[in-house]
This record gives sequence, C-alpha cells and structure tokens, in this order.
Amino acid sequence: MTLDDLARRLREFADARDWGEYHTPKNLAMALSGEVGELTALFQWLTPEESLTAMSDERLRSEVLDELADVLLYLVRLADVLGVDLLAAGNAKIERNERRFPPGRGGYSSP
Amino acid sequence: MTLDDLARRLREFADARDWGEYHTPKNLAMALSGEVGELTALFQWLTPEESLTAMSDERLRSEVLDELADVLLYLVRLADVLGVDLLAAGNAKIERNERRFPPGRGGYSSP
Amino acid sequence: MTLDDLARRLREFADARDWGEYHTPKNLAMALSGEVGELTALFQWLTPEESLTAMSDERLRSEVLDELADVLLYLVRLADVLGVDLLAAGNAKIERNERRFPPGRGGYSSP
Amino acid sequence: MTLDDLARRLREFADARDWGEYHTPKNLAMALSGEVGELTALFQWLTPEESLTAMSDERLRSEVLDELADVLLYLVRLADVLGVDLLAAGNAKIERNERRFPPGRGGYSSP
Repeated sequence: MTLDDLARRLREFADARDWGEYHTPKNLAMALSGEVGELTALFQWLTPEESLTAMSDERLRSEVLDELADVLLYLVRLADVLGVDLLAAGNAKIERNERRFPPGRGGYSSP
Repeated sequence: MTLDDLARRLREFADARDWGEYHTPKNLAMALSGEVGELTALFQWLTPEESLTAMSDERLRSEVLDELADVLLYLVRLADVLGVDLLAAGNAKIERNERRFPPGRGGYSSP
Repeated sequence: MTLDDLARRLREFADARDWGEYHTPKNLAMALSGEVGELTALFQWLTPEESLTAMSDERLRSEVLDELADVLLYLVRLADVLGVDLLAAGNAKIERNERRFPPGRGGYSSP
Repeated sequence: MTLDDLARRLREFADARDWGEYHTPKNLAMALSGEVGELTALFQWLTPEESLTAMSDERLRSEVLDELADVLLYLVRLADVLGVDLLAAGNAKIERNERRFPPGRGGYSSP
C-alpha cells in the first residue's frame, strides 16, 4: 500500500458517494484545517514533555491515531484533486531545506 | 521513494541540526497547524470553482506546491516522532469510513 | 459589558479553578487554533452563498454562535495573559490597513 | 472605542473597497484560520515558560501584536457579516462554562 493507492481509494470512495462536487480544493483545504485543529487540541494542555509520551495513554493514543489519519486523508485527497504528486513535492522541499539550513552551523531561526 | 524514506530523511535532517529537542509532538502539531493556515490562506478569496483551476496560475501553483510540501513534512515528522505508521492509520480510517458511509444511500451528513 | 469585563471574568474563572498554569500563551494559542478549526468545519461544505444564510438554519446557527464564542474567549484570554490591549491593537492595525490599501484604486492583492 | 465601533469601521473599510462580495462567512472563516495559523507559528518552538515572556522580546512583541490584531479583525468582521453580537455570545458561553465546571472540585477534563 502506497500513497498513490490511498489517493486512488479516496477517489473511488468520493465517486461512489457523488461527493466530487464538494471536494473542491477550497473545501478540502478547510476540511484539512478543521482536522488539524482537532489534532492540535489533543496536545494543547500537555507540556512538550508530556506530549512525548502521549501514545502510552490508551485513550489519547486512539484519538491521536484517528486525527493523524483524518489529516492524512484530506491532505492526500486535496493533492489528488489538484493533480499534485505529494511525495515528489515533499522531497523537493526537503532538498531545498537541506541547502537552506546547512548542518553544523547553529543559530537557525527555525527548527 | 516512500513515506518511510521521507520519514527517515526528516529524522536525519533534524538529528544533523540538533533539532530533536524542539521536535516534540506538541511543537510539531503547532508547526503543522501553522503550515495548514498558510495553505488555507492561498484559497481564501477564491470561489470553489476558481480553486479547481488554481494550478494553472504559475505563481499560485508554486505556492500551493510549497505549502502542501510543508504540511506533508510536518505530518510525516509528527507521526514519526509519535511512532505512528501513517499509511496504516490512514488505511484503517478509510475502512471505517467505508462502513460508516455506505455508498448509494444519499443524505450523508458529511462529504 | 465590555471586552475588558470579559477579560476580567475569564481571569477570575481560570483563577477559581487553578487553571493559571495551563493558560500559557503557547497553550492558549493552541486552544484558539483548535476552536477556529471547529468554526471552519461548520462552513467547509457550504458554498460561499450558502454560508451567507447559515444563521437561518436553527441548528447551524447555534453551532456557529457557540464556536464564535469559544474563539472570542480564547482570544481575549490569550491577549490578557500577554498583557495586550486587544481593542487598541485592532484599531492600530485597521489604521495601518487604511493607509496600505487606499480606497477607490482597485487591484488589491487581498480583500 | 468598543467592539461595535470596530465592527462598523471594518464594514466601512470593506464597503469603500468593494470587498463585500469576498467577505462571505466561508471566506472570512478561512481568513481567520490563516491568521490564527500565523499567530500559532510565533509560539511553536518556544517552551510554555518562554511563551510567558514573549512580550519582552521587542521583535516578537511586535509580531504577536500584529497577529492578535489580525485575528480580532477577522473575527469581528465575520461576526458582523453573520449578524452576531460577539460580546453577548461570549458572555452566554462563559455563563454556560461556569455552570459546567463548578470551581473547587478538581478533575476537570479541560482547562
């Protein structure tokens, strides 16, 4: 199972339900941001240290898995509707970041 | 190149820059939500119809690719730090959705 | 009742429950973004035109009121914890915008 | 200067620029979420403790003020377009919260 398989499955899922007209990039970007809001909410009252062990709490673990999945599904669906190869875009970006932030120099403005 | 390869590359990237201490799930969820905010902003004044042809505008296309990539990178990094298999989580979720929303019945509350 | 009254009431509310330690700017920014995610989700499948009449649907109206309130409460609380006069900051910003986007010229990059 | 004054000023600002057609609730909710994303990003790499003193850094202080203002402006504009009395909605919500979370009992699920 690859990201492409997942994109195809989501496309068939939407087609079988006639949801295509709802799945515009604008609407999917909103859906993505709603799901990221739910994911963020799971960590909002935890300290950064507590967040590191979030997955050892059974209930929180289940919620985190569910929200990570929702975020991935909408991201993959959005990229598919836009005709974007998500993995290629991600790779191109990390290559730019590797040039932009050479290792071993310190003082980066953003981790 | 797979999602696992991307996760490994991001891990090495963070390690080489000693960014590990910043990359807690709490912080990465915030970074993810910041990037999704930037992606959403690209579509905010477009109609849903205009958003469908966003990629034919050269400048907008480049910004969309960049933001989609940023969202993917933080999502993959967050899942990796949490020890989550993102593709497996996404597949489990779409299977639940297929049972939850059987096709051909109409009247779904949420596309 | 003013925004200052609301800030005071939220402060007393948090103090009476010993929530002060949770209410750091970082955590409150996350809580704010979670609530905005819920607000956004209410409009995600509506067309822009449908969103204009959202308040005539009784159930949607109640959800919108609830989420707008949550966003306001976390925004006011965040500003209070940071010692920011929210109204003054808002006024200063709209004055900058009035200079930045003079009326009657068209071609603005951002509405 | 009150929240109502601010709403009126934003209405006149939008009218003078013919931005009314862009200012649907759907679009404004997206704009709000984009601004909250920028606000969140300012705190993402800070510890909760560091976020408490964010305003003593001159550059960060200026960015925080700017983003808080943007969030307020879009929130006030969104409420105005929807015909919502934001302060009344906020007060109604804190009253519900006061009943829902009585003080001095501990064990609240959400601060």
